Amino acid sequence: MQKIKVGILGATGMVGQRFVQLLESHPWFEVAELAASPESAGKAYEEAMAGRWKVSADVPEYARRMKLRECKPTLNCSIVFSALDAAVAGPIEEEFAKAGYVVSSNSRNHRMDSDVPLLIPEVNPEHLGLVKTQQKLRGWKGFIVTNPNCSTIHMVLALKPLMDGFGLEKVMVTTMQALSGAGFPGVASLDIIDNIYPYIGMEEEKVQSETLKLLGKFGSNGVESAKVAVSAQCNRVNVSDGHTECVSVKLSKSATEKEIIGAFENFNPLRQLKLPSSPQHPIVVRKEADRPQPKLDRNLEKGMASVVGRIRSCPVLDYRFVVLGHNTIRGAAGAAILNAELMKARGLIG
Amino acid sequence: MQKIKVGILGATGMVGQRFVQLLESHPWFEVAELAASPESAGKAYEEAMAGRWKVSADVPEYARRMKLRECKPTLNCSIVFSALDAAVAGPIEEEFAKAGYVVSSNSRNHRMDSDVPLLIPEVNPEHLGLVKTQQKLRGWKGFIVTNPNCSTIHMVLALKPLMDGFGLEKVMVTTMQALSGAGFPGVASLDIIDNIYPYIGMEEEKVQSETLKLLGKFGSNGVESAKVAVSAQCNRVNVSDGHTECVSVKLSKSATEKEIIGAFENFNPLRQLKLPSSPQHPIVVRKEADRPQPKLDRNLEKGMASVVGRIRSCPVLDYRFVVLGHNTIRGAAGAAILNAELMKARGLIG
Amino acid sequence: MQKIKVGILGATGMVGQRFVQLLESHPWFEVAELAASPESAGKAYEEAMAGRWKVSADVPEYARRMKLRECKPTLNCSIVFSALDAAVAGPIEEEFAKAGYVVSSNSRNHRMDSDVPLLIPEVNPEHLGLVKTQQKLRGWKGFIVTNPNCSTIHMVLALKPLMDGFGLEKVMVTTMQALSGAGFPGVASLDIIDNIYPYIGMEEEKVQSETLKLLGKFGSNGVESAKVAVSAQCNRVNVSDGHTECVSVKLSKSATEKEIIGAFENFNPLRQLKLPSSPQHPIVVRKEADRPQPKLDRNLEKGMASVVGRIRSCPVLDYRFVVLGHNTIRGAAGAAILNAELMKARGLIG
Amino acid sequence: MQKIKVGILGATGMVGQRFVQLLESHPWFEVAELAASPESAGKAYEEAMAGRWKVSADVPEYARRMKLRECKPTLNCSIVFSALDAAVAGPIEEEFAKAGYVVSSNSRNHRMDSDVPLLIPEVNPEHLGLVKTQQKLRGWKGFIVTNPNCSTIHMVLALKPLMDGFGLEKVMVTTMQALSGAGFPGVASLDIIDNIYPYIGMEEEKVQSETLKLLGKFGSNGVESAKVAVSAQCNRVNVSDGHTECVSVKLSKSATEKEIIGAFENFNPLRQLKLPSSPQHPIVVRKEADRPQPKLDRNLEKGMASVVGRIRSCPVLDYRFVVLGHNTIRGAAGAAILNAELMKARGLIG
Repeated sequence: MQKIKVGILGATGMVGQRFVQLLESHPWFEVAELAASPESAGKAYEEAMAGRWKVSADVPEYARRMKLRECKPTLNCSIVFSALDAAVAGPIEEEFAKAGYVVSSNSRNHRMDSDVPLLIPEVNPEHLGLVKTQQKLRGWKGFIVTNPNCSTIHMVLALKPLMDGFGLEKVMVTTMQALSGAGFPGVASLDIIDNIYPYIGMEEEKVQSETLKLLGKFGSNGVESAKVAVSAQCNRVNVSDGHTECVSVKLSKSATEKEIIGAFENFNPLRQLKLPSSPQHPIVVRKEADRPQPKLDRNLEKGMASVVGRIRSCPVLDYRFVVLGHNTIRGAAGAAILNAELMKARGLIG
Repeated sequence: MQKIKVGILGATGMVGQRFVQLLESHPWFEVAELAASPESAGKAYEEAMAGRWKVSADVPEYARRMKLRECKPTLNCSIVFSALDAAVAGPIEEEFAKAGYVVSSNSRNHRMDSDVPLLIPEVNPEHLGLVKTQQKLRGWKGFIVTNPNCSTIHMVLALKPLMDGFGLEKVMVTTMQALSGAGFPGVASLDIIDNIYPYIGMEEEKVQSETLKLLGKFGSNGVESAKVAVSAQCNRVNVSDGHTECVSVKLSKSATEKEIIGAFENFNPLRQLKLPSSPQHPIVVRKEADRPQPKLDRNLEKGMASVVGRIRSCPVLDYRFVVLGHNTIRGAAGAAILNAELMKARGLIG
Repeated sequence: MQKIKVGILGATGMVGQRFVQLLESHPWFEVAELAASPESAGKAYEEAMAGRWKVSADVPEYARRMKLRECKPTLNCSIVFSALDAAVAGPIEEEFAKAGYVVSSNSRNHRMDSDVPLLIPEVNPEHLGLVKTQQKLRGWKGFIVTNPNCSTIHMVLALKPLMDGFGLEKVMVTTMQALSGAGFPGVASLDIIDNIYPYIGMEEEKVQSETLKLLGKFGSNGVESAKVAVSAQCNRVNVSDGHTECVSVKLSKSATEKEIIGAFENFNPLRQLKLPSSPQHPIVVRKEADRPQPKLDRNLEKGMASVVGRIRSCPVLDYRFVVLGHNTIRGAAGAAILNAELMKARGLIG
Repeated sequence: MQKIKVGILGATGMVGQRFVQLLESHPWFEVAELAASPESAGKAYEEAMAGRWKVSADVPEYARRMKLRECKPTLNCSIVFSALDAAVAGPIEEEFAKAGYVVSSNSRNHRMDSDVPLLIPEVNPEHLGLVKTQQKLRGWKGFIVTNPNCSTIHMVLALKPLMDGFGLEKVMVTTMQALSGAGFPGVASLDIIDNIYPYIGMEEEKVQSETLKLLGKFGSNGVESAKVAVSAQCNRVNVSDGHTECVSVKLSKSATEKEIIGAFENFNPLRQLKLPSSPQHPIVVRKEADRPQPKLDRNLEKGMASVVGRIRSCPVLDYRFVVLGHNTIRGAAGAAILNAELMKARGLIG
């Protein structure tokens, strides 16, 4: 099989470099183009990344000498993965979609557009039905599909089997989010050493609104928001990678702890599709009292799993648990890649 | 005025050394005795603390050459502050109380005893009424008064004015607790570097149960637990001092944000007593979007305040906020000292 | 006595805010002007510092409502303390000196000028003799005096008594420098969590060259560089404040360990002057095997001391020791203030 | 080929678990026995490691249900890798050697014994000649071979090509050592957060003495210590894995920077042997100004390389550079495994 040519928009940032790393030797996709801001355009990727490549010791061999291009819809590829900064992502992604590219975006700009799928393959694959509407309404040959915010995605992966099994009414979450979520240079070291930073701009709003869309029903009128009350409190902590979230839920039906665990462990709706980036267990349940921990568990299933632990009853709502996941893999670049794999499997791509 | 002689039980631990530090030049109390485990007894305090004194560069001059004694009720003092480990605190504190000492304890052992006050001077001073019952029931000349767990105390200081003003029905809290709360050596560095430790043994239970007693009504039958549902999720984070807590509350009456802030800022029931360790503002409200932060705010009011910020409505309950406080000052040693000051002001101490 | 009016140039950076903090209630100086970049000019200091004040919980009361001015020589004061960025400090400081101001600068720009004193009051007060030359050569009414780099100053404070007592031939130093030395936002958190950053631009050159000037002889031809070989290796470590330096020295004469310790402990050439910011012990010697440590020792003598420990013989040169000091107090703002105090005591300031 | 059965002594500590991890799927060796202290003996390995397994998310499948045995020479294997604590390693290792086992030890106890090889395969393979003497002198069927301390090994790997090429006279080193080097629980988090710990017991002595033996000449009278002056200053820093060392050397012959780099890059004396754990490049040279960094470079060559950077001339000696390496892989468990591979290749192991 010939591989599909893909491009990466915003290839120099923290999420961009994860795309570069995760797409090395991808069985279906081949990175044909790396694009970034006009200032970087023209430079070899390795040169542009001097002092900025943070996800491993070295830029992968394949990408080193690739010339960075501008983010214009003249790239030689059919899919673009977008890790663009929200300040510029909106119109650029639209231009690409208009010009016929499939845009799999990690940027927040189009996530809440009523005709753009906000997609987690295991959670709401049927939302891909919005693509048709989107193309019709906007007159585009291509289209945009987005993945959720890095905190939302791990929480919603854990909420979905609970909602399916027992109904979901209320969700409270307090997040402890990793530094890489803020990009590079991102959080100043003086702001986080011996400290907690109790505020992340727009993050609580994103977690609250994206969750309702992700869990919403797809019908002839598009996606109807889920009727769930969601409250998020978001903090930055001194951890490099891996968001930890303390979640409490109110369910519609009573459930035993064993049933809750079973719902998590049996959740694997993509099993049949055998997508290359699909984890064997989208939700890994840890039974130890003191897990999950970011340092130990963030790379389980190559960073594509949501790891759940400390499942116990809640004196205010019904159940509490801790969910942890890698924020730049399953929470960003890996999410967009898995989305593209699902689109390919569904025949939406080439 | 002649100062009252006091002793410190468990003087070598993290809380014990805070007692030693905070009681230097106290206007009412004079440290006459330092006591610790039998292995340390007989050593000069400075010698025993070699490599273990962590709260400043040097042991205070006054304590250096004091000889450590065993924790037996033959100490030359009338009050003992207990920072004993829970493994041994129970019977030792009882012996002291029986022998006529006033025991102001930070240990958890007697906190939930029905005849022992669990005291925060600004919150439930009337609970000191239990002292009489305690002495009668147990036939003791002295008595035990306890202060709450380091996480509980800061949260309850913030809850009290809300309960008084608007009624309190439900509380959800996720804590991010400092390393010093686990004592020394406490948390292994390999367990917390680039990590969150999502479990603290018995901590959630303590926060949940102590809160109900602290907010309970004192009557002829002792303390009646408050009718509030409390859920706590407790985490250890890479911060030296200062617990940060994300709180969400359901109130009985509706309240505006302005009224909530007013309730916090006007809360100062001890104003008239002018206790030496009493903060000018027991609750400091920060208006900045990104405060409180442990590194910046833990030492406000000499570590005796609870610092509240990010007050905003909650989509699931009614209001949310962040509360932060110093865990070994207002959360431990400073709490027990303030308790003793209140007892003195109330005539319970000679 | 009426206080002398002073201004702070670059008042918004890390060193600038230390000036603001340390000059609160200074017995001789009164901050009359705060100046910064044109973008900040016109703002109230507190407003400009929102999210940037890092040295304590709050901007000191006195400075909050002061309006930031531009760095132009129309400030209403006679001394300016300069914490300007090296990119702009050079010409601005010259303008002020030309216009008659005394400039006490922490910036590196003029440190190595042959007619500008690079001053540590305890080490080379006689270098102030360069002021006359400077004024004559440049035709200035005012003048510039500089303090050394934050790593250099602590090392040279420790070297001076050794040089005086035993002669100094070679110095090897490896530094482990704090984050605040890089300013704010400075070092990215992702670059230092679980990491060492083994390079600081131009730092090794500064330590090597400044040391020779500081230890040089002042004569009719200016300062003659000391004949000492100095090698510096500089690293950034995950510490907020306090530079730690492992030093090894070759002396001209043999010396016992006791003599070395004596030389450090007896070093206090400013004793008689009673300058307000002068530490009682410019060099504090710690005898414990595991000291000095930045967290415990950086604030000794209010951050104005150099703390020496682990004095022992060296198998390659003669002696080795560790020196530690606060990099933004004695290593920067406090250094410039002490310099101004010496100038005042010597009659160089009105 | 049938694999050789090996055992691990001290399998529960930080180095012990690295052995367990690195020996999973080893092409020549098969872990047949795990042994630890009498208190752990009898437990399944996974059970004994609850809360203590730190090198990855989970104990490898193969080891989980293995029963821990006592460290007695009745183990069913022919080689034992020793990660025993120095407090007990001495006599236990002797018993095993006496009983005919090959002991490849990471413990310090026998390193300086005149008839025990202290071995780095790339540096002094000829020292294996001591084995014969050892067996003869002690009347043992088996024998002991040791690897150096974790700081020493990386420095000596870098020194060896310099000594071979240009002669080596003096070495100054300041180390910044990782937390895992102190074992688990090891360094208390309160001792290292926002701090440097400037002392590691016996470490400087080990670096200084082991280096001389490693670089010494093997002859008919055993190993003659190298005539090199070595000075080490050792610090603990807040890094999980990876020791960083600032080294300065005096050579016997002059050398250009290019020759120095060439000596490092061409150093690969084991090339022909194709040992399974042998790195392709024992010394990796980084050319970037700000490398090596522990977080980025410690896992190069699967943790088996010494990574050198910042090569430049030294104003006091001749050349300076930074060397970094993984302290529990090449610095401990990986070193002992490579030693055993060399012994096998040399016919010393069955």
